[in-house]
Amino acid sequence: MAYPTRVKLVDVGPRDGLQNEKQPVPAAVKIELVHRLQDAGLKEIEVTSFVSPKWVPQMADNAEVMAGIRRQPGVRYSVLVPNMKGFEAALASKPDEIVVFGAASEAFSQRNINCSIAESMERFAPVVAAARANGIYVRGAISVAVGCPYQGEVSPAGVELVARLMKEIGVQHCGVADTIGVGTPRKVQAAMEAALKHYALDDISGHFHDTYGMALVNTAACLEMGIWQYDASVAGLGGCPYAKGATGNVATEDVVYMLHGMGIATGIDLDKLIDAGKYISDFLDRKPNSRAATAILNKRNNEACAVPS
Amino acid sequence: MAYPTRVKLVDVGPRDGLQNEKQPVPAAVKIELVHRLQDAGLKEIEVTSFVSPKWVPQMADNAEVMAGIRRQPGVRYSVLVPNMKGFEAALASKPDEIVVFGAASEAFSQRNINCSIAESMERFAPVVAAARANGIYVRGAISVAVGCPYQGEVSPAGVELVARLMKEIGVQHCGVADTIGVGTPRKVQAAMEAALKHYALDDISGHFHDTYGMALVNTAACLEMGIWQYDASVAGLGGCPYAKGATGNVATEDVVYMLHGMGIATGIDLDKLIDAGKYISDFLDRKPNSRAATAILNKRNNEACAVPS
Repeated sequence: MAYPTRVKLVDVGPRDGLQNEKQPVPAAVKIELVHRLQDAGLKEIEVTSFVSPKWVPQMADNAEVMAGIRRQPGVRYSVLVPNMKGFEAALASKPDEIVVFGAASEAFSQRNINCSIAESMERFAPVVAAARANGIYVRGAISVAVGCPYQGEVSPAGVELVARLMKEIGVQHCGVADTIGVGTPRKVQAAMEAALKHYALDDISGHFHDTYGMALVNTAACLEMGIWQYDASVAGLGGCPYAKGATGNVATEDVVYMLHGMGIATGIDLDKLIDAGKYISDFLDRKPNSRAATAILNKRNNEACAVPS
Repeated sequence: MAYPTRVKLVDVGPRDGLQNEKQPVPAAVKIELVHRLQDAGLKEIEVTSFVSPKWVPQMADNAEVMAGIRRQPGVRYSVLVPNMKGFEAALASKPDEIVVFGAASEAFSQRNINCSIAESMERFAPVVAAARANGIYVRGAISVAVGCPYQGEVSPAGVELVARLMKEIGVQHCGVADTIGVGTPRKVQAAMEAALKHYALDDISGHFHDTYGMALVNTAACLEMGIWQYDASVAGLGGCPYAKGATGNVATEDVVYMLHGMGIATGIDLDKLIDAGKYISDFLDRKPNSRAATAILNKRNNEACAVPS
């Protein structure tokens, strides 16, 4: 199959990214980050989560952030909800989309949410029904789709099971996530093929972590299958909770650099995106965790230095 | 075409890598690094260069390093030579292979070696003839094969020209190098196709820099063409001389992690390779510039911490 000519990227930096950063970020900075992302051309942004602040204090300002965003027509704002209580709290913020999640490994499901994969989907069923009754799109995420920190290798059968259960409860989109970044092209393609047994090509996305440096090569492997939707996190926000100091989410800048180089349109202005990544990285007092952003920012600085004084 | 089942990696860390590190490295450390690389299973190592120490003081110990290596049967030791004077100096060290180089961009050729592409090849002709007369294999490298810091985009025609000229003067192997790391899959494939007009598939290799994070995706794109030889640099040794603080050579560890994950054999023991990278990185007082090594070293540390005391 030929590469898609256009790719849609979902920036998960404000939620998935900032949730895994130690430093607390004020609501105003999160809002400004969302504004900069949409100005750069992002058409979908995972803004926050409605999880108990006891578990995720970084997202306690969820309603404030959602209320503060100057919404742009054509942009979809999504929030993560873990259960009905979270959904009810999210509803007042009028998200365009909610994200629910299941694990492709029983060990991960048990350790993370204290129930089996099947039980987790049963718990989500009323949430999905309520969201759809309210006209809210439901995205599902399958975590640890190729490898699990507790059980090691994850078979495509695990992915297929979650995809089937998600489909049965009415989840509209299936995101396949390599949560710990151990995947390589063939394994990731096998996981995608498992998801494709229950979801159409247009309803599937990839979510890759760059922990072992594999995120882009896995993205390219999925592009070859025609998959045209991917999550990414500006400035590579969010470390890896399973390997301290290691890289987590792939940087949106790196994905955009690759896609544009391949002649695949994203609608994103890479320079503005790099500025958005620099904005939040400056706030966090670190460098963007993106090789493309690093190289381009260096180039900008060198050119600036080269101007005769 | 199916992926190759086996890949040969050339570690260029001791030469291309250390040449671009600011900190001087004593000969004994370089020798130990070569020993660790061959113990890890590398079958070809670019050891040093015979360039004037006025230009490259880091390689002034070339003869000492070559003399100090405990050579292993089946391992090929290569050195870079810029001209006949360098070749004559190298000869006493009995390299298995010499590396000569040309640029795919006229601008780069002029700025770097003060002559045109065609002139540079004329100058190499007697070196190549002398090497082959001495039974030394001759590898050619085409630098800036997809992008040039001075002229920007480089067309496949530039690559084809150098490949043709190299072939004409008797260069046996053609390495296609994305010296500044700006390439993306389709551009890199086009450069490879240009080289394939003059060299057989078995006589071509890829040399990718990870400056923009594209090295692995470019490697995978070439694997799809059947190309099975690649350069890489342990611990990502060697920065990018054209963008300060940016990444240069792709880390051998990252390439090996990807290949093994894809079921492609390399003959390399990844754990030993990571140890070799840690050895030289500790000496340079920095972390290995490899995502796979970072993740695996983190995992080792976390497991070590988890042992009950």
